[in-house]
Amino acid sequence: MPSNRLTSMEDLLTLELRDLYSAEKQITKALPKMAKAASSKKLQQAFQQHLAVTEKQIERLDKVFKEMDVSPGRHKCEAMEGLLKEGSEIIQQKKQADPAVLDAALIGAAQRVEHYEIAGYGTARTFAQLLGYDRIVGLLEKTLSEEKETDVKLTELAESEINVEAVEQE
Amino acid sequence: MPSNRLTSMEDLLTLELRDLYSAEKQITKALPKMAKAASSKKLQQAFQQHLAVTEKQIERLDKVFKEMDVSPGRHKCEAMEGLLKEGSEIIQQKKQADPAVLDAALIGAAQRVEHYEIAGYGTARTFAQLLGYDRIVGLLEKTLSEEKETDVKLTELAESEINVEAVEQE
Repeated sequence: MPSNRLTSMEDLLTLELRDLYSAEKQITKALPKMAKAASSKKLQQAFQQHLAVTEKQIERLDKVFKEMDVSPGRHKCEAMEGLLKEGSEIIQQKKQADPAVLDAALIGAAQRVEHYEIAGYGTARTFAQLLGYDRIVGLLEKTLSEEKETDVKLTELAESEINVEAVEQE
Repeated sequence: MPSNRLTSMEDLLTLELRDLYSAEKQITKALPKMAKAASSKKLQQAFQQHLAVTEKQIERLDKVFKEMDVSPGRHKCEAMEGLLKEGSEIIQQKKQADPAVLDAALIGAAQRVEHYEIAGYGTARTFAQLLGYDRIVGLLEKTLSEEKETDVKLTELAESEINVEAVEQE
């Protein structure tokens, strides 16, 4: 049974997974607000789709915890709290901002969130590999590639229409 | 002169740059503590080297602000505050943790920080490109590739010795 004291790699993997679990839970609360603040229909859809993906990712983490026979715990991911605080600050500017510029800002905030998850799942996957937890590696890799895909999609969306529109309106 | 109101892409680029400036400043304060907490000599060196690189990156941002004729401002990067809070939590465990496991945890925290910067500099670079600020694009790309290199180095360090040692000690 892993402890909270980092005496083994199992403890550390558990901590990383609990951190990701808290991060994903926070993201599910933030995404509907981000979708509502977005002006571009495509961006609204991207946030809504990512909410559905995130819910599946939480289910996947539940499976991982079961595999390891530990609970998701009550650890709060402070980093995600900070990341989403920055997202809220952008949303608060909605009334006075240019819509296309606000969309570009929302994409920037979302990509920071994605990169947090890419780093987190990448680390957890490496630890699980070292511990020989093959089924867990598979589950974490699935989510990791989804997060990378989302990041690429957001870049494409930003480059293809939103940023261009934002610059044109100046 | 950009405003804080996100009425133009220049406003947004300025906000992104101020966010990165605050993030880098916070990182310079955290890195010496992370180096002190690390047990592996190679990891200590990696953190110390990254401190020197970060100081150059701050100088580079100073140049970018001059180019744009704006001040670095007083914006606080809340996300980096959260990311570094997680690093501090790990450091606080030093007495009761296994040294190799703690090193692996420190690398995980550092990679989350790197990914924040990769996302941030990537976004800022894209905005600068759209605005046709070629000199700024060059400066941001230099830092972006340094951050990516650091991330790769940390992965190599984790995979080549630290994680293996942490698992062996179990």
